[in-house]
Amino acid sequence: MELKIALLPGDGIGPEIVGEAVKVLNSVAAKYKHTFNYQKALVGACAIDATGDPYPAETHAVCQGADVVLFGAIGDPKYDNNPSAKVRPEQGLLRMRKSLGLYANLRPLAVFDSLADRSPLKTEIVKGADFLCVRELTGGMYFGRPQGRSEDGNTAYDTCVYTREEVERILHLAFGLARKRRKQLTVVDKANVIATSRLWRQIAKEMAPQYPDVTVEFMFVDNAAMQIIQRPTHFDVIVTENLFGDILTDESSVISGSLGMLPSASVGAKVALFEPIHGSYPQAAGKNIANPMATILSAAMMLEHVGLEKEGKAIRDAVNKAIEAGVVTEDLVSAAGKAASTTEVGDFIAAAV
Amino acid sequence: MELKIALLPGDGIGPEIVGEAVKVLNSVAAKYKHTFNYQKALVGACAIDATGDPYPAETHAVCQGADVVLFGAIGDPKYDNNPSAKVRPEQGLLRMRKSLGLYANLRPLAVFDSLADRSPLKTEIVKGADFLCVRELTGGMYFGRPQGRSEDGNTAYDTCVYTREEVERILHLAFGLARKRRKQLTVVDKANVIATSRLWRQIAKEMAPQYPDVTVEFMFVDNAAMQIIQRPTHFDVIVTENLFGDILTDESSVISGSLGMLPSASVGAKVALFEPIHGSYPQAAGKNIANPMATILSAAMMLEHVGLEKEGKAIRDAVNKAIEAGVVTEDLVSAAGKAASTTEVGDFIAAAV
Ligand SMILES: CC(C)[C@H](C(=O)O)[C@@H](O)C(=O)O
Ligand SMILES: CC(C)[C@H](C(=O)O)[C@@H](O)C(=O)O
Repeated sequence: MELKIALLPGDGIGPEIVGEAVKVLNSVAAKYKHTFNYQKALVGACAIDATGDPYPAETHAVCQGADVVLFGAIGDPKYDNNPSAKVRPEQGLLRMRKSLGLYANLRPLAVFDSLADRSPLKTEIVKGADFLCVRELTGGMYFGRPQGRSEDGNTAYDTCVYTREEVERILHLAFGLARKRRKQLTVVDKANVIATSRLWRQIAKEMAPQYPDVTVEFMFVDNAAMQIIQRPTHFDVIVTENLFGDILTDESSVISGSLGMLPSASVGAKVALFEPIHGSYPQAAGKNIANPMATILSAAMMLEHVGLEKEGKAIRDAVNKAIEAGVVTEDLVSAAGKAASTTEVGDFIAAAV
Repeated sequence: MELKIALLPGDGIGPEIVGEAVKVLNSVAAKYKHTFNYQKALVGACAIDATGDPYPAETHAVCQGADVVLFGAIGDPKYDNNPSAKVRPEQGLLRMRKSLGLYANLRPLAVFDSLADRSPLKTEIVKGADFLCVRELTGGMYFGRPQGRSEDGNTAYDTCVYTREEVERILHLAFGLARKRRKQLTVVDKANVIATSRLWRQIAKEMAPQYPDVTVEFMFVDNAAMQIIQRPTHFDVIVTENLFGDILTDESSVISGSLGMLPSASVGAKVALFEPIHGSYPQAAGKNIANPMATILSAAMMLEHVGLEKEGKAIRDAVNKAIEAGVVTEDLVSAAGKAASTTEVGDFIAAAV
């Protein structure tokens, strides 16, 4: 297969971890006789520095011309804690999601048995947890207008909006994904207080008969924030709107105890994007210590997304081998072990493929 | 002291747990020579059943005429999962908060050493956690207008609004509370995406110099949802807007492992309201098995609020004695112990005061 891959390393550790994922992809290409063509583009703080725009038109063109996008991370301390600045890396991220039509963010959360003891939760609570968060990514308060200030600057307002189409397409996706898993769908909302949530709930109820094999459950977001910690094994597929999803996916990610292992996909239109869920970790940049596994597993999701199931599994197996062999970065190293570098982990996995 | 206490038992286990708190209050009144006058009123599902209104005018009058309100819980399965129903218990709750001017919800979260092993989190992570969530309670998306549907019903919208006054008064309260504690204030927002959060952050920065002894930290809500689980001992006072507070306070409450122990206060105007953070637990209603401790501790907060520090402490000490003596309901009973009933726990604490 020939595959056009846009590479958006971004900021901080982004270039290093994307570099290791490319190493692994190249090893897959050689072994399974595929041709992967890469094209790099700027996004985030590095794009602001170079062009004044966190998501330059050229980067958009590169993404649009690709089959898939592999994304590192964005964010730089010099733009942090200044949310009122005119140009911010996050704006690039939001514009990218919107303009590429990436309306669904998928975050599988599985606890690796061998890493279960790293969780802040008790092993007996977290063991066996294996669920998928489906977050709506291009609607809600993130994009609703009007948003801003009154003339005197003393009143601020945001708007949360959802249309039937937006809700239906993400729910169809979530129902479909539940069907391929354990057939349990939890729709998270705040329908006892807000109107957009009542629309979500109404539409989910209307659609449920089309998926008679899927069990639907409704849960208020405050309760979901509790249940994710109390009973993480309860969930199969969770679907929710953008802002609730932002909060709950991050909450979910920590229960695994290994943030450096968690991949994600953003899908919707023609092109799909894959990225680790962790950030740009600027303190570690350039030190060859960042864990590349979440990015490498994102590359596996990417291959599976284009139908290369076998190849995706080969990467996952190789990652498991690295963990078993103790070839892991300092965030995962056991008391007895010695931390490997970013490149050593990448080399090991590329060789193991 | 003479104190007028409005009692709003509400639904489910509400009447039972409020009954035990009154028992304890009476024992305090006798010992410390106070006069507590109680007046009961309806709220929630029981108020809908009796009057068609979840927060009848008469109940409002009783609350307005009182010094403090002791609240049980509301909610009944027959009104659940039907968030589109015309009249719902939650509407009464929101109307009550708004019309009584209860703009701040305070939830102390302390892990009882002897109960730390009940937490879903590892003991070494949760031990010593002791923080206070300050949630804005009468603004944001809960009350912002417009809220509703387009004419064809296919678009729904909500509005989040905050004014400078609303933000200043809650931040002043939070700064003041931090000053009385460990002097660390975490302001939680989503200032990288929404306008109301940018107003919050701006005002917090403006106010900080008035509280030079308090260290202020800003945290995005998604990150806060992670840190609360990863490093609960990091926090002292957390302050945030209504909806984020709804989610984060519930998330925080489960890390203690003993929901049945957590009190809360809603303050703002003349009258203040005290209630357990747990719900109406309808399955347990009438069975004499519900844990009354959160309500009893809410009564302790209530006394402390009106300046009866010694009396509040007497209640806390009595609760600790009950725990040490193993006189606890089934939710807290140890493998070796025998569960006490709701009334047995109340009797023990009332006697121990
Ligand atoms: C950086 C920020 C705008 C973004 C979001 O809120 O969506 C991030 O938290 C995420 O989840 O990808
Ligand atoms: C019942 C509901 C409206 C309420 C809220 O969201 O405020 C509850 O969750 C709470 O936290 O008291």
